[in-house]
Amino acid sequence: MNYRLAGKHLGLLFMVLSAIILLVATWSGAVVLMGDARESRAAGALLISGVIGILGGGVLWLAGRSDRGALRRREALLLVAASWLFGAALAGLPYFVWACLAGDEFPAHRFLSPVNCYFESMSGLTTTGATILTGIDTLPRTILLWRALTHWLGGLGIVVLFVAVLPAMGVGGKRLFQIEAPGPDPEGVHPHIRQTARILWFIYLGLTVIQTIALRLAGMDWFHALCHTMATLATGGFSTVDSSVGGFNSVAVDIIVIFFMIVAGVNFGLYYQLMTRRVQSVWRDTELRLYLALMGGGALIVVLCLVSQTLHLTTGESVEPSVGQAVRHGVFTTVSIQTTTGFGTADFNHWPTLAKIVLLALMLVGGSAGSTSGGVKVIRIWIAIKVMAAEIEHIFRPNVVRPLRLGGSAISPELRLSTIAYVLGVVVLLCVGTCLIMLLEPDDAIDVTTASTSCLATLCTIGPGLAKVGAIENYGWLTDGSKIVLSLLMALGRLEVFAIIVLLQPRFWRGN
Amino acid sequence: MNYRLAGKHLGLLFMVLSAIILLVATWSGAVVLMGDARESRAAGALLISGVIGILGGGVLWLAGRSDRGALRRREALLLVAASWLFGAALAGLPYFVWACLAGDEFPAHRFLSPVNCYFESMSGLTTTGATILTGIDTLPRTILLWRALTHWLGGLGIVVLFVAVLPAMGVGGKRLFQIEAPGPDPEGVHPHIRQTARILWFIYLGLTVIQTIALRLAGMDWFHALCHTMATLATGGFSTVDSSVGGFNSVAVDIIVIFFMIVAGVNFGLYYQLMTRRVQSVWRDTELRLYLALMGGGALIVVLCLVSQTLHLTTGESVEPSVGQAVRHGVFTTVSIQTTTGFGTADFNHWPTLAKIVLLALMLVGGSAGSTSGGVKVIRIWIAIKVMAAEIEHIFRPNVVRPLRLGGSAISPELRLSTIAYVLGVVVLLCVGTCLIMLLEPDDAIDVTTASTSCLATLCTIGPGLAKVGAIENYGWLTDGSKIVLSLLMALGRLEVFAIIVLLQPRFWRGN
Repeated sequence: MNYRLAGKHLGLLFMVLSAIILLVATWSGAVVLMGDARESRAAGALLISGVIGILGGGVLWLAGRSDRGALRRREALLLVAASWLFGAALAGLPYFVWACLAGDEFPAHRFLSPVNCYFESMSGLTTTGATILTGIDTLPRTILLWRALTHWLGGLGIVVLFVAVLPAMGVGGKRLFQIEAPGPDPEGVHPHIRQTARILWFIYLGLTVIQTIALRLAGMDWFHALCHTMATLATGGFSTVDSSVGGFNSVAVDIIVIFFMIVAGVNFGLYYQLMTRRVQSVWRDTELRLYLALMGGGALIVVLCLVSQTLHLTTGESVEPSVGQAVRHGVFTTVSIQTTTGFGTADFNHWPTLAKIVLLALMLVGGSAGSTSGGVKVIRIWIAIKVMAAEIEHIFRPNVVRPLRLGGSAISPELRLSTIAYVLGVVVLLCVGTCLIMLLEPDDAIDVTTASTSCLATLCTIGPGLAKVGAIENYGWLTDGSKIVLSLLMALGRLEVFAIIVLLQPRFWRGN
Repeated sequence: MNYRLAGKHLGLLFMVLSAIILLVATWSGAVVLMGDARESRAAGALLISGVIGILGGGVLWLAGRSDRGALRRREALLLVAASWLFGAALAGLPYFVWACLAGDEFPAHRFLSPVNCYFESMSGLTTTGATILTGIDTLPRTILLWRALTHWLGGLGIVVLFVAVLPAMGVGGKRLFQIEAPGPDPEGVHPHIRQTARILWFIYLGLTVIQTIALRLAGMDWFHALCHTMATLATGGFSTVDSSVGGFNSVAVDIIVIFFMIVAGVNFGLYYQLMTRRVQSVWRDTELRLYLALMGGGALIVVLCLVSQTLHLTTGESVEPSVGQAVRHGVFTTVSIQTTTGFGTADFNHWPTLAKIVLLALMLVGGSAGSTSGGVKVIRIWIAIKVMAAEIEHIFRPNVVRPLRLGGSAISPELRLSTIAYVLGVVVLLCVGTCLIMLLEPDDAIDVTTASTSCLATLCTIGPGLAKVGAIENYGWLTDGSKIVLSLLMALGRLEVFAIIVLLQPRFWRGN
């Protein structure tokens, strides 16, 4: 293992991240100069964090600058894991510094605990959206912007990583993220990582511009429009107000957010295909169809469950049962959950059991591979179902070998095993996580529903769970131990488990 | 599908079961003649049930008697599923008839509900030991004997099925149940099903005689000794008293029961090896070693959790913290849970979280393949762990193919996939079962712990779960819908899922 080389790339990443922090600090400074003195401490906090990040990254880079070799597979995996694990520490630094500076205005603020800051920034970078905060509305805009930006950067990183970088390196479920073309296309989206990454970056940026303008036209100011756009396209879920998207109480906003959440849950490779006018092959994409069908079916059940229910909104209001309200909040919540965004307009913790079961199932399924969404991914669930059905048939027809197909191409035995193993791995992580949370919390503070859904909501990068971590609750009350476990689950879920789990294999560290 | 042929064999099985019911009725009649008039209604109930069973079985047999063909794979699978699903109905008939006859003595007895009777007899035949009863001590001895006998018959059926019949037919995880011999032994225990079955029957009977005598010597009367022996060797868990084994408050009884529970959780094929003096190969058996190591490790953790705890016994008493009590009840409970017996001496519902987590994990693992115990089985967990570790290594070393070995022989790719798929299938069933129970119970009557552990405790054939289905509780309060779901889970778990799940595959019923 060439640690210096991995360190050099990590240093580079730190410097880029710090440069972005300094950019936000500059904007913040401009706001201060324009007369808004409230932002001055936040600007200072970002400045200090940016400088620390540049220095730290610089040292790492300098230490490894003589190493000009290419990253091999294991170093690349280590770099991916380190990017999120240490990147979250750097991204959380502004929160901590700000809380230290703003001690007189916000005494005993939750950001005074480094674990809280790490949790919040890991939740941002992994596009989870679970928060330890209350009184979000009272925070300076600079902090809120940086918080939303961590989502956006994390989402961009994931799309580039999973659609451009890893498939080209042959790491992970290449076959899953590769665009389904009507014929063998072993090169994935594009053979050149840089060029593919540039195209994805362009698509992501384009969508950001469009949604921001749409939200502005729907009545949000530019700041809230931009922050919510960044949280939507990353399927993150951080809002700028405690009551989340529900706080804006606008049907137009809800519809725009629903549309772009759905967009963000689609394989970004398909947008590349759309740009090259391969519309037919996009429409024939198995995962896209399944994703939309699942979402439609799920929304239908949830809406039917809600028609005779009094709904409790995230703003604290209640609305009387009506079909219109059931459709509005049922569809919003279902889309928000399946795309693993986690925005809220209504508190689904009190919804009928069936609706909650549907939502929990959709949490686990998640969006499409190659999107910013989390969860197991629609395509994996589909393969797993096919493999399980084939295994059952194998019991009574041991000699029939039926080739499993996915959109025209066969599913190899290796992919069958790795998919089933992946799904099982996710379930095992959920169980282990739940047990750890149960052990780390005092007996009377936690119930199984809270413990298990907090793990599900972080591992699948949704944000809100049920019971004490429900849509109108937060994660601030948990012990530090639990917050660290949940932060790790976010990283595990975000990197499709493998990039973190390999670190636990002794063989990973052996040899060179 | 030749339904007549399958029906003929089912009829034969019904007649054998009815003959055994009539045998118990005869014993019961003798008891009545010796002056115990309290048993007369139970004797009558068994007589009526036995006659109905003989008639029903006879009709099935007559309808198919001209079919002299051999059972093919699909008919055999259908027969296995039908044996347990319909067999439980016949075995539950005596409970229902007795409750109807004894209405004046036991008004509103739970056995007056056919669903309760089905649950209880399915729990018996599948060797689960979950009960809907309270006031077990007040039931006539005839009913208690029949109840214990359902365990014993179910246990015998399972051992014969999984060690002799299915491997010889090549159905199911042949490789798992086959005895690990130091060399290829494609024939399993013995090529001739009948002869293997006879040897297993002899071993089972021998163990029954030995344990009954041991319990008698420890102070139980013959009746209780026999009933508890049958429930122990089948890893069932039905007791003759409400407070279970704890009610006898005897260290000697506890030790004897612990020993024979451990014995019952071992692959019965190994006893066959012992009889042929292959002691060395028994001791080298991977699963036996893992099974004992897991049990020892689990017991150690549980005991350590209990040393400073006040223990609540199943008798309602409390005992002050002491090392002796912690060892006694910790070891008994751990062994009872891992072997999926479910006998109780103490109420583990109030034990520390860590102890409960260990017990839940052991519930899922269960005993050895080819034993009367339930759960996923030690050997499958072991294979699953090895496969998962190999999958993780595959991420960073895609070109290294490391053959997975199990006690000297390689694990084939098919076995890898089917094992992982099996474990995932069990988890999926647990989730589906939990959701169904949550939906079928009124919202305020059920919590997630009760719902999920009731499914775990039935699917893995343990009996008691946690919370409202804990060691000192029962399943009688659940709705009929839940009881039917749990009865199906018992059958699913007992038949290693496949024999029931194939029935849900449309392709199973197609063709001939």
